[in-house]
Amino acid sequence: MVEQTQTRLDLTFRALGDHTRRAMLERLSRGELTVSELAAPYRMSLAAASKHIQTLERAGLVKRTVRGRIHYVRIDPRPLERADDWLRAYERLWDTRIERLAELLRHPDNNPSDSE
Amino acid sequence: MVEQTQTRLDLTFRALGDHTRRAMLERLSRGELTVSELAAPYRMSLAAASKHIQTLERAGLVKRTVRGRIHYVRIDPRPLERADDWLRAYERLWDTRIERLAELLRHPDNNPSDSE
Repeated sequence: MVEQTQTRLDLTFRALGDHTRRAMLERLSRGELTVSELAAPYRMSLAAASKHIQTLERAGLVKRTVRGRIHYVRIDPRPLERADDWLRAYERLWDTRIERLAELLRHPDNNPSDSE
Repeated sequence: MVEQTQTRLDLTFRALGDHTRRAMLERLSRGELTVSELAAPYRMSLAAASKHIQTLERAGLVKRTVRGRIHYVRIDPRPLERADDWLRAYERLWDTRIERLAELLRHPDNNPSDSE
């Protein structure tokens, strides 16, 4: 189960590691698009765009529905939520307000504004 | 500038797309480690572990300091924060409470509990 979660996160983060795929997700966050609409703004072949869409599909980030001869793509936000859950576990590392508050709770006599 | 941000995010998300590298970051979040300490728990050569550390370095996720003959590695959380900023822009897609609240603000006469 842990292994499955790890593999899913691997696929999600790898799918997000490309600016064209992130731009596709950005557009899909506003609503469903056909594969042709999704591919249109990019200076690439439909085949190259399809490959990006397949990578997003494998990561579970998009779902494809075929109606007639048209392929529709919509976003599935669940893997984004899991990726965000992973990242938020490290929030204390960058959110110094949280870190300072934790420090104050550990040593209530220290005034954090005294420290550098 | 936008392009640089995109390239950085590419490197960050790709570096996170591997469970060994995520496990390394998890251990580094608790404090600095030497390269050998960092490599020790994994069934892989020091060379393979070093390659993972280099990928993390290129993404700016870790910094290396050499003291004497020992290489020390520590986490730099800033790229994690930027990745999280990107993901949080999509929070409304999975956080249905936020979506329902927004819906209620748009149409105050609709009681969301009436809808399915």
